[in-house]
Amino acid sequence: MQVYKAPLRDMRFNLDALGYSERIASLEAFQNYDQDTVLALLDQGGAFAERELLPLNRLGDSEGVKWDPETGAVTTPKGFREVYQKLVENGFVGLTSEEEFGGSGAPETVSIGMSEMAMSCNKSLMMCPGLTLGLVHALEKHGSEQQMRDYLPKLVSGEWAGTMCLTEPQCGTDLGLVRTKAMPEGDHYLLTGTKIWITFGEQDLTENIIHLVLARLPDAPEGIKGISCFLVPKFKMDGTPNNVRCTGIEHKMGINASPTCVIDMEASEGYLVGQPHKGMRTMFVMMNQARLHVGLEGISAGEIAYQTAVAFAKDRRQSRSLNPSRQDSSASADTILVHPDVRRMLLDQKSTNEALRTLAFYIALHLDLSRKHPEESVRQEADDIVALLTPVMKSYGTERGFYNTSLAMQVCGGSGYTKDWSIEQYMRDVRIAMIYEGTNGIQALDLVGRKLPKAGGRLLQSFQSQITNFLRETKEVAGMEEFTTALKATSKELTAVTMELATKGMSDPEEVAAVAANYLKLFGLTTLTFMWNIQVRQALRDSDAYSETKVRTARYFISQILPERHGLVEIIRSGGAHMMAFDEEELG
Amino acid sequence: MQVYKAPLRDMRFNLDALGYSERIASLEAFQNYDQDTVLALLDQGGAFAERELLPLNRLGDSEGVKWDPETGAVTTPKGFREVYQKLVENGFVGLTSEEEFGGSGAPETVSIGMSEMAMSCNKSLMMCPGLTLGLVHALEKHGSEQQMRDYLPKLVSGEWAGTMCLTEPQCGTDLGLVRTKAMPEGDHYLLTGTKIWITFGEQDLTENIIHLVLARLPDAPEGIKGISCFLVPKFKMDGTPNNVRCTGIEHKMGINASPTCVIDMEASEGYLVGQPHKGMRTMFVMMNQARLHVGLEGISAGEIAYQTAVAFAKDRRQSRSLNPSRQDSSASADTILVHPDVRRMLLDQKSTNEALRTLAFYIALHLDLSRKHPEESVRQEADDIVALLTPVMKSYGTERGFYNTSLAMQVCGGSGYTKDWSIEQYMRDVRIAMIYEGTNGIQALDLVGRKLPKAGGRLLQSFQSQITNFLRETKEVAGMEEFTTALKATSKELTAVTMELATKGMSDPEEVAAVAANYLKLFGLTTLTFMWNIQVRQALRDSDAYSETKVRTARYFISQILPERHGLVEIIRSGGAHMMAFDEEELG
Repeated sequence: MQVYKAPLRDMRFNLDALGYSERIASLEAFQNYDQDTVLALLDQGGAFAERELLPLNRLGDSEGVKWDPETGAVTTPKGFREVYQKLVENGFVGLTSEEEFGGSGAPETVSIGMSEMAMSCNKSLMMCPGLTLGLVHALEKHGSEQQMRDYLPKLVSGEWAGTMCLTEPQCGTDLGLVRTKAMPEGDHYLLTGTKIWITFGEQDLTENIIHLVLARLPDAPEGIKGISCFLVPKFKMDGTPNNVRCTGIEHKMGINASPTCVIDMEASEGYLVGQPHKGMRTMFVMMNQARLHVGLEGISAGEIAYQTAVAFAKDRRQSRSLNPSRQDSSASADTILVHPDVRRMLLDQKSTNEALRTLAFYIALHLDLSRKHPEESVRQEADDIVALLTPVMKSYGTERGFYNTSLAMQVCGGSGYTKDWSIEQYMRDVRIAMIYEGTNGIQALDLVGRKLPKAGGRLLQSFQSQITNFLRETKEVAGMEEFTTALKATSKELTAVTMELATKGMSDPEEVAAVAANYLKLFGLTTLTFMWNIQVRQALRDSDAYSETKVRTARYFISQILPERHGLVEIIRSGGAHMMAFDEEELG
Repeated sequence: MQVYKAPLRDMRFNLDALGYSERIASLEAFQNYDQDTVLALLDQGGAFAERELLPLNRLGDSEGVKWDPETGAVTTPKGFREVYQKLVENGFVGLTSEEEFGGSGAPETVSIGMSEMAMSCNKSLMMCPGLTLGLVHALEKHGSEQQMRDYLPKLVSGEWAGTMCLTEPQCGTDLGLVRTKAMPEGDHYLLTGTKIWITFGEQDLTENIIHLVLARLPDAPEGIKGISCFLVPKFKMDGTPNNVRCTGIEHKMGINASPTCVIDMEASEGYLVGQPHKGMRTMFVMMNQARLHVGLEGISAGEIAYQTAVAFAKDRRQSRSLNPSRQDSSASADTILVHPDVRRMLLDQKSTNEALRTLAFYIALHLDLSRKHPEESVRQEADDIVALLTPVMKSYGTERGFYNTSLAMQVCGGSGYTKDWSIEQYMRDVRIAMIYEGTNGIQALDLVGRKLPKAGGRLLQSFQSQITNFLRETKEVAGMEEFTTALKATSKELTAVTMELATKGMSDPEEVAAVAANYLKLFGLTTLTFMWNIQVRQALRDSDAYSETKVRTARYFISQILPERHGLVEIIRSGGAHMMAFDEEELG
């Protein structure tokens, strides 16, 4: 049994809460996207996800992808080609791309809602257009005029697909170890090397595949400062094959309908993107886009698993309510929804997933501001916030999302463990999100080692001033105080911990690295507290039944989820000495 | 790649720490089991697990079990029959059973060590003898003389296997809803009904299968007070089939080599065990045995996953240590063991799994005392401790065990997500342990609703007096103080929370049910703190290299894991009002 209804009501609530109309639709670049238009698009996207994507999800998992060792060809599961074609026909792939290359120029705020629903219903398939979108952004920013003309129209339409080729057998996190070689030849380069973990590196959905590849020029300095970025198409512009071959696929815990390929290049033609040795600049555009969307995978999985668990709990009858007034005398047992512990498991999911959705929209909105707002200072501040919160969204979103699917399984008991309810698939599919696009540990290091110190701490200041402004604006709002009190407390504590960390980090960088993961969790809890405050403000404006539920859910979060921060603070303060004290042999 | 080395060194340490020689080997019943004999047995069991069980584990997962709809027959994966036969030949099945029925009369303390290693290496297969053992215990306690003579010898030897048949489509947790009918006929009963989730309900490993079945007599009162317990063999004593048929198997997330069967009985002959309508007494013997072993599944999976992650981390090289003195200039990158966050993930596993192992041995030791100590008061106190800690072991052990496999996967990055390193299988296989034998939520209700109030709170008092005695004994021991301080603090806090809960529970049982799961976690953390104290005491006695690691690991636990208690206390105190405030429709 597969259960899913697009959460359009909550998306509308988020657009209201974040002031989409005043802040985004009012920008010249998005004049065609007023809130009604956006809601109509989300409605269309949600319907597509429910109708076209969901029915293929379980089949995709059980059938998986097939790889032919003879030809290197990869076959996607039955029906995937047809539904991908419909994605293309509906213009979903290039929704946010520039109109000059055939895109719709829609704001990221729309895209984030569309992606959430589509990934709830078929994460494996959606990884293909998701990567294409990342490549489009990278080329829009760093491609040459000619490259944009040659590649963007077909990528934006979805006729061609993009991949990102970073990892090699000896290097994943540490890209300085890349060995793939790029030899200059005329106006192009010849690339030779092996890339692994290449999502949709080979497939039968599109007529061409454009790989964005990290490699070294002959004169490259060692390490990360000698990495250049290349476009390597499967077929060259004249249609001839380019010696790019899939030499194997991985067998994984999940995302079985998404081929994870080994890609061999042997003197394959490649075209330099951006400056020599500065390839990471281009790749980071694609990676940042991907990280945000990977964070969203946590929400997508959490949402569909939650809906499934609620449907199960409403149907399943076991035991009697401890409260006589809740007992249903027409049946021999009550639905398990009457049991406090079942509610605890459901509300743990609901109160975190809804706050994560607000965070996703919040980041998307700032992405739109950073790209299209006329004032430089606004763009800068928005960009700061996106940069700061991207690792939080990726790491906290996926960890919590995975945990939420596990809670959903627990609600369904033995049934949840069988394939019948599909939760086990959502759980397997989303587990990889904690690993790829930079493991969650790497995200934590990005937060503490890169984003916090950057520009003298300006990124955190930008975010803190958003919180300060919010607290000032809501000071007199009746009903806010119980929530702003929690926000003030956790935000103040986060600031104190951050200062201590900055001081320690000056003398001992290992100390900071040792506590980074728990610091990111504390940051995540604080951020979600802010997101609940934003929602409560909107709920108090609306004051309808939906809003009353919002306020109760916020209260649940503050009392049942946020207290985790106390342990985290003590763990962070106790520091890294305990883990660094061990010799390697002592660990086993 | 499959990595496993039996943790014999740690088991020996645990026997020392818990005083096995003085407390168990000194009992008359266990005079043949001095510590050297036990260690030799554990050595033999560990070698068997590594050599025979592990090589079949991945194959069992990929091949799975097959069910023939024509005949109802179930075929286990290739090699399972042979290795099961070796288990029988080695006398592993009836290790702890009474010698009069062919068992070895070994203490549970041995069995727990043997089971841990065997389940690390092949959880699916070991579920079969595990259930047989539970049935043996139930029959030893509640079977008639004739039943013992008829069934125990072949069950103890492992020639026959046992199952437990509780669940029906309409009833899992709520066994009062059982509908299977038992009609008296001569000296036996005819049972008709359908049972689901029956582990090894049908298989090709043994020549007969003996089902322990819950059913209702015609004159049975409604609900749980009208449930009787029956032996229903697949083949009757005269060898004729008994109309017990497997009509389907489940398709699950994991434990694919363990058949989960639908079992149909149609006027199948059954033999009453114990008194009419008092069937739960018999079944609870089997369930308590099973719950302890399910808790152990968490340790088993956590251990093999940890070992795999350590092996990976020692081999994989990425990036440079932040500490120049740790950098390995002979290679282009350092092993990932130098990175603080990798150590954090490994030590989170090590510090919890080792404490859980001590807890498992601690419970097993009290089980031995409760069965075989000559003094009634000692037996009673030991029984109290087993009863109190069984739900903690089952719930905390499986939740932490599952989480630890996920941490192990995270250490291995993308490789951990592929089937190559098997961690993904350990994770899938162990997830069910949080659900079956009473979900973890049910364990929490058992703890707060049954075990705490029982006999005027005597069970908790028995446990607390163990802690008090320990604190008194170690008062003057140099080096203990940093650990006893933590134990005192968390133990005092647990007592305070328990008192508050007892007071609230008198006026509102829903309040207690709402916080039960988090209360159990707090109980688990306190218990593991006690277990680390016990280990540290031993470590300070030994003062060798192994012991120094133990002390450091204890310190890690106290500083990096235990602080979670602060959040839990606040969550428990904030109470159940927030979750009960929601109408059903508000949840989705």
